[in-house]
Amino acid sequence: MLKRYLLAPGPTPVPSEVLLAMAAPIIHHRSPDFLPVLDSAKKGLQWLYQTKNDVLILSSTGTGGMVGAVNNFFNKNDKVLVINGGKFGERWTKICQSYGLDVEEIIVEWGYAVKPEEIEKRLKKNKDIKGVFVQASETSTGVYHNIQALGSVVKKYKDTLFIVDAISALVAHDLRTDDWGIDIMVGGSQKGVMLPPGIAFVSVSEKAWLKAETSKLPHFYFNFRKERENLAKNQTNFTSPVTLIIGLNESLKMLQAEGLENVFNRHERLANATRKAVQAIGLELYPKESPSNSVTAIMAPPGIDGQAVYKNLREKYGITAAGGQDRAKGKVFRIAHLGYSERFDIITAVAGIEMVLKGMGYPVKLGTGVAVAQELLMA
Amino acid sequence: MLKRYLLAPGPTPVPSEVLLAMAAPIIHHRSPDFLPVLDSAKKGLQWLYQTKNDVLILSSTGTGGMVGAVNNFFNKNDKVLVINGGKFGERWTKICQSYGLDVEEIIVEWGYAVKPEEIEKRLKKNKDIKGVFVQASETSTGVYHNIQALGSVVKKYKDTLFIVDAISALVAHDLRTDDWGIDIMVGGSQKGVMLPPGIAFVSVSEKAWLKAETSKLPHFYFNFRKERENLAKNQTNFTSPVTLIIGLNESLKMLQAEGLENVFNRHERLANATRKAVQAIGLELYPKESPSNSVTAIMAPPGIDGQAVYKNLREKYGITAAGGQDRAKGKVFRIAHLGYSERFDIITAVAGIEMVLKGMGYPVKLGTGVAVAQELLMA
Repeated sequence: MLKRYLLAPGPTPVPSEVLLAMAAPIIHHRSPDFLPVLDSAKKGLQWLYQTKNDVLILSSTGTGGMVGAVNNFFNKNDKVLVINGGKFGERWTKICQSYGLDVEEIIVEWGYAVKPEEIEKRLKKNKDIKGVFVQASETSTGVYHNIQALGSVVKKYKDTLFIVDAISALVAHDLRTDDWGIDIMVGGSQKGVMLPPGIAFVSVSEKAWLKAETSKLPHFYFNFRKERENLAKNQTNFTSPVTLIIGLNESLKMLQAEGLENVFNRHERLANATRKAVQAIGLELYPKESPSNSVTAIMAPPGIDGQAVYKNLREKYGITAAGGQDRAKGKVFRIAHLGYSERFDIITAVAGIEMVLKGMGYPVKLGTGVAVAQELLMA
Repeated sequence: MLKRYLLAPGPTPVPSEVLLAMAAPIIHHRSPDFLPVLDSAKKGLQWLYQTKNDVLILSSTGTGGMVGAVNNFFNKNDKVLVINGGKFGERWTKICQSYGLDVEEIIVEWGYAVKPEEIEKRLKKNKDIKGVFVQASETSTGVYHNIQALGSVVKKYKDTLFIVDAISALVAHDLRTDDWGIDIMVGGSQKGVMLPPGIAFVSVSEKAWLKAETSKLPHFYFNFRKERENLAKNQTNFTSPVTLIIGLNESLKMLQAEGLENVFNRHERLANATRKAVQAIGLELYPKESPSNSVTAIMAPPGIDGQAVYKNLREKYGITAAGGQDRAKGKVFRIAHLGYSERFDIITAVAGIEMVLKGMGYPVKLGTGVAVAQELLMA
């Protein structure tokens, strides 16, 4: 028997409480039964997003939310600034370019966070930048970009929207949509909110809605204005993913019972324990600064293939972590501490890493990193 | 959020595959749909029990199966021998006495296993002993009684039945019903077979069925002869617990995919790692000999209350283990490695024990026991 332990940065484990709620009989999305369900979900998302803005619910992956964040608010040849510090930063660029936007990039070396001054410099120099796109947590590198600092820069520019991909950061990091001036923030279901894949969330500020009025890009499926009209009636534009929304209410209930501050503290604590534990066995973190609380990207030691670490964790020990992406492939492996994650998931991860590395000939004294995690996770 | 880790000797964790199978629509137990379901379950149980005998399926806890093992095969004033080496040994005595049987006990000090010679001596001396009752794994002490050796003694006595409570041993220990001369063997759902509580299994040998013909004890609910007649038609005497039987087929499928020998080896390996790990941090096992592969009973160190260890594991760390029972209460705590249990469940248990004991002032170097378990559980 190979019992499986899911420690990947999405999909993440779904609590039984949520799975059970989703096993209830299907209700029709245009029936009165569904109205209070969506009403509860939209209010819960506003709580999680710390916002008074609308938070749209889309039947798509997180990337669908990213596409909508582009094609509802801009026009062809609009100048936009993309922070590209990893695979998902690249995705912003690709989406913007596919709609004919004029993309200027700030290339951030993988493993580093963007400097707020750099953005300020670009915005000052180029007054017609209509939007700044960034990831909160760049999943491919495990770096967190300082959204609060970036927001305080962008909000000085009246015609510039601040668009944050928070798909993997939501729940793991304190992200204050309203206070920090985030105009559009995209989330996804299969990450911190502990749901199966299939829905995206997008918050939209009044500043962004005004911009939407002049956008002429095609957006039949991701029509945010129609979604907004429907949301006001506790509906969605197309068929609502009723099961996932019922699950969402259940997971929001769990997060609300824990309290937002406790949720963030838990992720901070688990992430910190993971980092300190792997460093204790001589491993280096891939991020050189500002590590994410969602996922820890760890450098494979010299002579050891990061993909092989990932593969051994999975095949020998039933632990599904993640390997590296694109240029980090082979160099790193990644462990998530996101969503339905608690102390002994970290212990499992660290113990498994030690066992895999030892099996691959890396000189590790078993239990060394585990002990560090135990120390940091003591009640 | 307090994520829960279930490491108690029953109920044990139920795999999602099984839970999902049990979520299928209810079928009627007298409908043709159910016949292949029960047929598959009864054949699977014969495989698990390593027997050609009937294995009855009862809608009850394991104790219901124990009661049926008494009131279907004996008569008032029948002389029987009970091996009483713990709380569940006592239960055999109580059940036998409640039906007016004449119980002779072999009292085994808690923490020790019965000696086969002792049984041989009693049977030689007292030719009219009609049955010998024992636990395979005595859950209260964590001791395994040598069923093979005991069976080879009892089978020399033509008029004596050998009755084994295998409720917590089934799946964790190799128990060869036919080869070892076990006349009646009781199992329960919420242990090694990875199901919720609610069904008991009882195998009955031809020798026992012959005895049943002369039994006059009342047994309206646990009427084994009627169950046998029904089983031949792929039915049960009363309403079949259809959901649990569907789940049983799913868990038997998982065990069959693993293979019986691998199943036993896994339990042996997990149990051994648990024992060596806790000994490495200076703890003593409660069993002085023959430890069970289902559950490890661990002595609380001097000055530390075993119940407090159990309570701290649960309240501070979300780990549900077990405390001590009756005279072992306060002295011990118990960790199961039974059913849906794998390497990182042991790592979790050992890490949690270390953290709890350290928190209670016991001098433990975190990671010490974990490292021993890691070493023993390397792939």
